[in-house]
Amino acid sequence: MRKFALLILLQFSMAAFCLAEDGGRLWLRYDKIEDAQKLDQYRAAVKGVLVEGSSATVAAIREELEMGLSGLLGESIPGLTEMQQEGTIVAGTPTSSPFIAGLGLDKRLEPLGEEGFLIQTGKFGGKKIILIAANRDIGVLYGAFHLLRYLQTNGDLGKLAVESAPKLKLRILNHWDNLDRTVERGYAGFSIWDWHRLPGYIDARYKEYARANASIGINGAVVTNVNANSLILRPDYLDKVRALADVFRPYGIRIYLTARFNAPMELGKLKTADPLDPEVRQWWKDKIDEIYTLVPDFGGFLVKANSEGQPGPQNYNRTHAEGADMLAQPLKAHNGVVMWRAFVYSGDVPVDRSKQANNEFVPLDGQFADNVLVQVKNGPIDFQPREPFHPLFGAMPSTPLMMEFQVTQEYLGQGTHLVYLAPMWEEVLDADTYAKGPGSTVAKVIDGSLEGHRLSGMAGVSNIGNDRNWTGHLFGQANWYAYGRLAWNPGLGSAEIAEEWIRMTFLNDPGSVEKIKSVMMASHEACVDYMTPLGLHHIMGAGHHYGPGPWVSRMSRPDWTSVYYHKADKEGLGFDRTPAGSNAVEQYFEPVRSRFASRESCPEKYLLWFHHVKWTDKLASGKTLWEALCLHYHHGAEAVNRMRTSWESLKGKIDEERFEQVDMLLGIQEKEAKWWRDACLSYFQTFSGMDIPDGLEKPAHDLPYYESLSFPYAPGIRPRW
Amino acid sequence: MRKFALLILLQFSMAAFCLAEDGGRLWLRYDKIEDAQKLDQYRAAVKGVLVEGSSATVAAIREELEMGLSGLLGESIPGLTEMQQEGTIVAGTPTSSPFIAGLGLDKRLEPLGEEGFLIQTGKFGGKKIILIAANRDIGVLYGAFHLLRYLQTNGDLGKLAVESAPKLKLRILNHWDNLDRTVERGYAGFSIWDWHRLPGYIDARYKEYARANASIGINGAVVTNVNANSLILRPDYLDKVRALADVFRPYGIRIYLTARFNAPMELGKLKTADPLDPEVRQWWKDKIDEIYTLVPDFGGFLVKANSEGQPGPQNYNRTHAEGADMLAQPLKAHNGVVMWRAFVYSGDVPVDRSKQANNEFVPLDGQFADNVLVQVKNGPIDFQPREPFHPLFGAMPSTPLMMEFQVTQEYLGQGTHLVYLAPMWEEVLDADTYAKGPGSTVAKVIDGSLEGHRLSGMAGVSNIGNDRNWTGHLFGQANWYAYGRLAWNPGLGSAEIAEEWIRMTFLNDPGSVEKIKSVMMASHEACVDYMTPLGLHHIMGAGHHYGPGPWVSRMSRPDWTSVYYHKADKEGLGFDRTPAGSNAVEQYFEPVRSRFASRESCPEKYLLWFHHVKWTDKLASGKTLWEALCLHYHHGAEAVNRMRTSWESLKGKIDEERFEQVDMLLGIQEKEAKWWRDACLSYFQTFSGMDIPDGLEKPAHDLPYYESLSFPYAPGIRPRW
Repeated sequence: MRKFALLILLQFSMAAFCLAEDGGRLWLRYDKIEDAQKLDQYRAAVKGVLVEGSSATVAAIREELEMGLSGLLGESIPGLTEMQQEGTIVAGTPTSSPFIAGLGLDKRLEPLGEEGFLIQTGKFGGKKIILIAANRDIGVLYGAFHLLRYLQTNGDLGKLAVESAPKLKLRILNHWDNLDRTVERGYAGFSIWDWHRLPGYIDARYKEYARANASIGINGAVVTNVNANSLILRPDYLDKVRALADVFRPYGIRIYLTARFNAPMELGKLKTADPLDPEVRQWWKDKIDEIYTLVPDFGGFLVKANSEGQPGPQNYNRTHAEGADMLAQPLKAHNGVVMWRAFVYSGDVPVDRSKQANNEFVPLDGQFADNVLVQVKNGPIDFQPREPFHPLFGAMPSTPLMMEFQVTQEYLGQGTHLVYLAPMWEEVLDADTYAKGPGSTVAKVIDGSLEGHRLSGMAGVSNIGNDRNWTGHLFGQANWYAYGRLAWNPGLGSAEIAEEWIRMTFLNDPGSVEKIKSVMMASHEACVDYMTPLGLHHIMGAGHHYGPGPWVSRMSRPDWTSVYYHKADKEGLGFDRTPAGSNAVEQYFEPVRSRFASRESCPEKYLLWFHHVKWTDKLASGKTLWEALCLHYHHGAEAVNRMRTSWESLKGKIDEERFEQVDMLLGIQEKEAKWWRDACLSYFQTFSGMDIPDGLEKPAHDLPYYESLSFPYAPGIRPRW
Repeated sequence: MRKFALLILLQFSMAAFCLAEDGGRLWLRYDKIEDAQKLDQYRAAVKGVLVEGSSATVAAIREELEMGLSGLLGESIPGLTEMQQEGTIVAGTPTSSPFIAGLGLDKRLEPLGEEGFLIQTGKFGGKKIILIAANRDIGVLYGAFHLLRYLQTNGDLGKLAVESAPKLKLRILNHWDNLDRTVERGYAGFSIWDWHRLPGYIDARYKEYARANASIGINGAVVTNVNANSLILRPDYLDKVRALADVFRPYGIRIYLTARFNAPMELGKLKTADPLDPEVRQWWKDKIDEIYTLVPDFGGFLVKANSEGQPGPQNYNRTHAEGADMLAQPLKAHNGVVMWRAFVYSGDVPVDRSKQANNEFVPLDGQFADNVLVQVKNGPIDFQPREPFHPLFGAMPSTPLMMEFQVTQEYLGQGTHLVYLAPMWEEVLDADTYAKGPGSTVAKVIDGSLEGHRLSGMAGVSNIGNDRNWTGHLFGQANWYAYGRLAWNPGLGSAEIAEEWIRMTFLNDPGSVEKIKSVMMASHEACVDYMTPLGLHHIMGAGHHYGPGPWVSRMSRPDWTSVYYHKADKEGLGFDRTPAGSNAVEQYFEPVRSRFASRESCPEKYLLWFHHVKWTDKLASGKTLWEALCLHYHHGAEAVNRMRTSWESLKGKIDEERFEQVDMLLGIQEKEAKWWRDACLSYFQTFSGMDIPDGLEKPAHDLPYYESLSFPYAPGIRPRW
């Protein structure tokens, strides 16, 4: 391993000049520490690595530590086979490492569970070392990545003492990847899963993917789209899944699949998919047993049923709970779970779409098997730039609810806008449902602590594709990174996560770190302002969801149009969800319900979500709705100008290739922010009948121009003939 | 530039250990020369680079020489601003370089034309230097790449004297890339053209693409599919095309587009696309003028008309010549050309498909405008593993004919088989048409020398995609490379081209070079043997063309089935194209016609292409057809075993990542070669009724098993819902 480490060290010391500085290395760069003092401190403290044990995970720990430390310290850090010297990093479990077993850490390790770890500098066995200990190998791997991050971000080795365990049990990426390699709502090229060449050809990216996820604590991947294809359950495809699982396993990533509810008919040629039919239940049991013979640590199924045309138990007059049970029973025997999505709404139902999930699922609380989680999107509509938290959180106390965040930026600029999503996620996680009085935050609902659930989890809809930089937009990597960190600990702050990522990805110089951080922290509010300020939602282009489309009014179902949501008229703007309207507010606990229901107490950021407001009504600022709307749209566009100016002041501090990548995209974002602003205001102006206030830039084109733009090949939907 | 060169040098000296050793650098690796003696010789001879001039191409020459030489020599080779010392590489034209102007090379440069170059070591102006001179900047760039290749392949600098000019004027890649980024018959991921983010986002790969093509003399790219989409002619898309052209221009790559014949209706809202309609002609003239305002060096149009459902002049009872003329006239004013494909055949016509191109085009000879080339596939059917040369070559003396080769391996193993195509291309180029007596080779037809045409060209259907290694299979790079080299000089040998590529891509150690070369040189015959030996053709799976499908008999048109081509029956096997059959042989000149028509003189490799042969007939070997067929199929599969064994003997000599990539794919190829063998023999056995000869491995499954396999998401066709 010494030779390997040396080569890697040379490679990394060159990395800054590498032609391949295309973002492909993500945040796992391990370039030589630039701060001379820190480098000296680290070199003094780290002389070698002792990782005892023989599992595949232990091998991964050894490889990562030797590669990472050799790169960061700019000198070969050898792997040791026994304790020799001071300055050894000892990593392992009491089972794998006699040395660690001898330290009697059982009391400290016990509360850390299966995935937690402790890191401690100090004298052990009489020698000054750095200890990474855990109950299981995977915990040690997480600890190793934590230590490497600590050095990448120039932490102080002197006083290092960490005990960390994940707050959530399931930390999962959902890939909306189709078997033809298109990715629904994917903006980073196409699927990284090369199904056609699996299992014979193992793309080097599969391991890189597993490493990157393990480095942020993600422990599961649903590799197929929720709009499911039963073909993935065919034996030849299951063997491909087996090959992927074999690559993921050492990194603690369990593989999950989406189950197409009528697979017993499509694949098994049965006459029904009725979840209470014995033949159907047997088919699923046999299929699940077949999967486990190939993938002994298979995680289970994610199911989208009776939603947007997907088949489900309701086709047979059965409930979601009955449908989930059919899969949950045979999975339970193998320690597998079912993640059942609550994202259901019917085009025929006249009820406000935002209310339908609660209407369908609250009555089922308590009827789900105990290895079923109900997966709920952060808000009641669909991943809009800003939504109030979903009213299901807190409303199903007997059922473990899983959070579904969307990491891919379907509604937040897709592949070209720099929008750091963690502040939006933080807003939701910190929201108080009052389900059991004050302090019943969404975070406590999903981590299981509010009701004491054994199962807990978070799902992130992946933004990963086969682009060289993984996420299309380099800053999309920050959203992947932040998602994983929040899934490990929903209590982390979005700003501290941003700083970690910046220091690992770009540089450690404090001034530059602050600049990039302020760009990131301002980006979400900017996007809300230039797309959907004041609680507006779902006014994007139809189908591909690219660009503004407030005029969209003719779709196969009304709740897919924009006019359904903004309700603009001569009077005013906004969706009345008070008791006078759809009364969606009734689904929230008091005092949230009354706060949202009252025009006075409703937070302005949700104003048009819950209220239809007159154009001439005054807001807190004293401005009329129309004036405030115009100002928000303009502030959004101006904020993007500032983001770009700030980024360009970093020229020379960041390698040219990545600097240019981001700068070009900020140029596009500037144009598109103005496009959103001018198109939306031109449209709403036809209702308000008022001029855009003096001093504000007027739209560059007239409304018919904006309505005429077409993008038949915008990415993220399946290509068509 | 010194600093840059130094950094690059460091980077390249590390490249062998680069984590990104994924094939992305193609053959332009510029790693430090390993042969110590050669390195000394080169270092002694090369001290600096003098490239005078200020054009974008001159800048590219300077960058390439300084980067390449610094990498190869392992020391910084500075860019100079004036002649100083011995050991300077001087590159330029008499126009750009006063020094070169002073050498009075006009007589030697004159015959080299616009793209040729000369390289000469020796004393000039009293100093021992290396001279790269040409009439135009682009010629100098070609010379620079030639010199770099010479060093990469460890040539002897002592006696370097080269004069080289391309034999063909148009050396073009045809991208069958759709605007949704799917690639028809693409097996290397998806399109590298990110149309959605153009023109604002310039992917770094666009320049890498242009560099790679310039390095092998390719000077044009048709960036859109021959199954054309008129949207590419919409102003917003033309601005994206403009952005690509700006990146390509310094590297001498002209951009071309495919013209959808009814674009005046789809885009211009006209009522007709009749090529004789004045409004239609005006629409095209205006569109062409619009293109040239954005892309002043636009190359012209490639057109697939009245073929496989594409619209064309015949929809209006006009001829191909009349259709081409409509586009040729306005293009002529801008020095643009039309490439009109001869790949036409009608499902309704009962005539043998292999005859239809000649039937339609020979009568039109002499009717095409003088800036039109007719583009002809190498064989009369469709890029099969082996076809006789297309009878159009030599049959249209008054029309410049362009060769269309398929670099992507639609019928030769797609993304998983190592098949070096140059020997197949060489076979066609060397074939003698006897159009004007012996020596009228296909090469002389397409280079224009046989009839003295001003225009000449070769088109290669690209195998490039967004996979990290560009071509999916690492050895697909060799086909891209060889295509470019043959387009520059159709007289080059496939073996010498293979050796160049191996030395540039992998290593220079003679033993290993020979091993890899023998693998490559054996690969095409092996593929023919395990897929379609003895002149069999078009027996692959339907639609995706993946895997064997000799049983395919039900398609929307008979000439898309396999049974149409192999004509297997109880009697025997093969398509009778003699006068007793379709008489396709009549389209060849004597003595070729008689040689193909006679069962005795017909080369065995074309036997079943031209003859229906009894199962019991004896071949030259004394074996019956059935025995010979079985032996060919088995030899093919065994050859792949040998290829893999030979490759694996190189373990340790080639970096692990690329070694593994190829080894995994050879494993797949081994399986698929047996699959082809066993499926085809099991099928043909149902007609011959004979056993597979003793000593030959029997099929692993029965015929129904092979017929039951389905691959709904095999790559290369547009994904479907």
